[in-house]
Amino acid sequence: MNDAGQSDAEYQILERSSIPAYLADIPAVAAILGKGEELDIQEIGDGNLNFVFRVSSKADASKSVIVKQAVPYLRMAGEAWPLGRDRMRFEIRAFSAYNDLVPHLVPKIYHADEEMSTVVMQCLDDHIILRIGMIEGIRYPLVAQHIGEFMAETLFKTSAWSMGSIERRELMHQFTLNTELCKLTEDFIFTFPYFAHDSNYSNAATDQWAKENIHTDYQYKRDVLAFKELFVSKSEALLHGDLHSGSIMVNQDESYIIDPEFAFFGPISFEVGKVISNFLLSCTSHYHRSGGADYRQWLLEQVSLIWKTFDSRFVEQWEQAGESTMLSDGMFSKEDLAKFRDGFMVNILQDAAGFAACSMARRTVGIAGVADIRDIEDLEIRSALEIANLKLSKLLMSERKKLTTIDELLTLVHKFYSNPIL
Amino acid sequence: MNDAGQSDAEYQILERSSIPAYLADIPAVAAILGKGEELDIQEIGDGNLNFVFRVSSKADASKSVIVKQAVPYLRMAGEAWPLGRDRMRFEIRAFSAYNDLVPHLVPKIYHADEEMSTVVMQCLDDHIILRIGMIEGIRYPLVAQHIGEFMAETLFKTSAWSMGSIERRELMHQFTLNTELCKLTEDFIFTFPYFAHDSNYSNAATDQWAKENIHTDYQYKRDVLAFKELFVSKSEALLHGDLHSGSIMVNQDESYIIDPEFAFFGPISFEVGKVISNFLLSCTSHYHRSGGADYRQWLLEQVSLIWKTFDSRFVEQWEQAGESTMLSDGMFSKEDLAKFRDGFMVNILQDAAGFAACSMARRTVGIAGVADIRDIEDLEIRSALEIANLKLSKLLMSERKKLTTIDELLTLVHKFYSNPIL
Repeated sequence: MNDAGQSDAEYQILERSSIPAYLADIPAVAAILGKGEELDIQEIGDGNLNFVFRVSSKADASKSVIVKQAVPYLRMAGEAWPLGRDRMRFEIRAFSAYNDLVPHLVPKIYHADEEMSTVVMQCLDDHIILRIGMIEGIRYPLVAQHIGEFMAETLFKTSAWSMGSIERRELMHQFTLNTELCKLTEDFIFTFPYFAHDSNYSNAATDQWAKENIHTDYQYKRDVLAFKELFVSKSEALLHGDLHSGSIMVNQDESYIIDPEFAFFGPISFEVGKVISNFLLSCTSHYHRSGGADYRQWLLEQVSLIWKTFDSRFVEQWEQAGESTMLSDGMFSKEDLAKFRDGFMVNILQDAAGFAACSMARRTVGIAGVADIRDIEDLEIRSALEIANLKLSKLLMSERKKLTTIDELLTLVHKFYSNPIL
Repeated sequence: MNDAGQSDAEYQILERSSIPAYLADIPAVAAILGKGEELDIQEIGDGNLNFVFRVSSKADASKSVIVKQAVPYLRMAGEAWPLGRDRMRFEIRAFSAYNDLVPHLVPKIYHADEEMSTVVMQCLDDHIILRIGMIEGIRYPLVAQHIGEFMAETLFKTSAWSMGSIERRELMHQFTLNTELCKLTEDFIFTFPYFAHDSNYSNAATDQWAKENIHTDYQYKRDVLAFKELFVSKSEALLHGDLHSGSIMVNQDESYIIDPEFAFFGPISFEVGKVISNFLLSCTSHYHRSGGADYRQWLLEQVSLIWKTFDSRFVEQWEQAGESTMLSDGMFSKEDLAKFRDGFMVNILQDAAGFAACSMARRTVGIAGVADIRDIEDLEIRSALEIANLKLSKLLMSERKKLTTIDELLTLVHKFYSNPIL
């Protein structure tokens, strides 16, 4: 048994050859695929960490499931780079919480197997990764509301403003050992991108700009350190922990949040800021990509819509909530509490701007870039967009404390984009 | 098994009659008491929660140990008030951490038995509870340095500025289930004292003052709520969690910290503020008690000494520390980091003032008063002192953000005490 109570004896790495027998033993899955049917098995995962298979009936491809397994090493690097498969335990636990809170916004989980570090879940054939859609300039009329709703529901309901003290700490306890993935965030979002570190991406003109304007900007770097401190020590609510446009599957009607393996109790504003940054990164990319000004406008409108949905649903739940860890009847009047709440929401907005700044920098000069920008082959264009993203990161960081509404944030962003980008 | 993994089968409540057999089976204890010796067993606990026995050899009373056991109910209230005995598990774990970090400032633990919710530890016959000494106006020349050192060592070394990310979250995980005692703090320090709640203490003139000046002071109450939020969601370092003058045993040379059953990962400033508040409460009490102006002066000097010792040792460790969760070589220059650290320490001071304000209010109108004040029989005098403490609480809360040094805090306190108290 390891620290998280996992037994190695029960674990085996699934292969195309062993998947049919594994799935045949799971009644809920057999019922979907059909008993004894011949199966098509494709490895479709392109993430860094895990193996993902699409499994469907040969006779009827619409009968399908996804099998996702964590292996005890980094998938992209192989066995030479060990990484605990505990992460799947936390993904399973997060999906279990989300299934209670927002069942319509996560895929159905047919089977969760902590021993095997495996989940079998709904196959989303009619959906694509939001990032890919955004690169192609596709509009999704409901995605912003879905994201805002997902965050408001999951973050409020797992916060001390909703849960009782004891049940909340018990839930937190389920995630405190998600140590390796928290450390990845600490290193790759809050540390390495801000100085010359071996792991960083390299593009000559961008490197030069970063050297002159990031590595030596001590106020900016101290601000990043303060946000790292918030990430490390503010145990506010159960976060997805990696909510970006690659963790959302969409079509015109539906959105599904996937890959919550980074789940842990952290600051609400981190989740909000990370999502927002991905729309800004995409916006910058469309100074080159095919979307053009109209699509950029759509992207910035989504930032506003995400925040406004999140904000109003978070506040609405708060207004309707009964007693909780934080609140007992009798201490505050409704009006008085509303004043506190206003300050609370402004604080989330300001901190979200700071976390968005960190996320933009990391996605620009850190190891894990976004395809929106990194896939642009022309290095000169790519670098111009990268430098724009770094400038916007610095602007958000330095101006965040002046922001009291999302409109003020967007005014700042619009003004930034009114300068030449390319 | 319960949630924390305790087996009820192994547990039995110790009685005077069963203690000799229990201790005889523990070689480390038998070696101290002498094998087969007849024992003197006295119940000496006067706390609310646990049973505490002093056990000594009849032939040689200097051969002695303390046996402390948690029972699955509130000792003062009896079996009708159940309280999980898990708390002893967390006390044992905290003592284990302290034994590594500050072995000279905690009693020796001879035996820790999670199944029996029992510790057997060093008998401190030559020491008294600091609160009792302070009520009697006794000076302890080293206690402030010891307290400052205890806090600096334990809080720095369990913080993200010292520990690696993974080991830190593993340590945190050991304490996240200390749910019941965290909830006691949330309720009795941050909630009930600020409005008319059944659990509160009552003294007519004090009640009236609180009704007019606490229950209706919305800014003050919102500040209290903000500090409750900090307590609930800032997982900064391993706190003792109940560090007041009743948790410290002293003589002229030595100080020992006891009773860390409230241990959990919380904000550093809570620990500092709670200690400081107990010296201020004692200072107020000596407007009536025998210590007089000289002793009051000594008490306020201790506040300064506690902070200065804490501050300088905390910073010194930081300067000497290598890489940690928060810091990687290469991101900051020494000078630049020092700027961040200065702001960090000022922040702890300001927040400690706010937490001290909460602690003073709770110790004045909440269920758990301090003997320094509550034991004064004259209700009029007692009430005058109580109102002074509430006024000082409000002053610390409203002025905290202006404080940048401990001297400024003490100037504020001295100015407050220059007004008539009785």
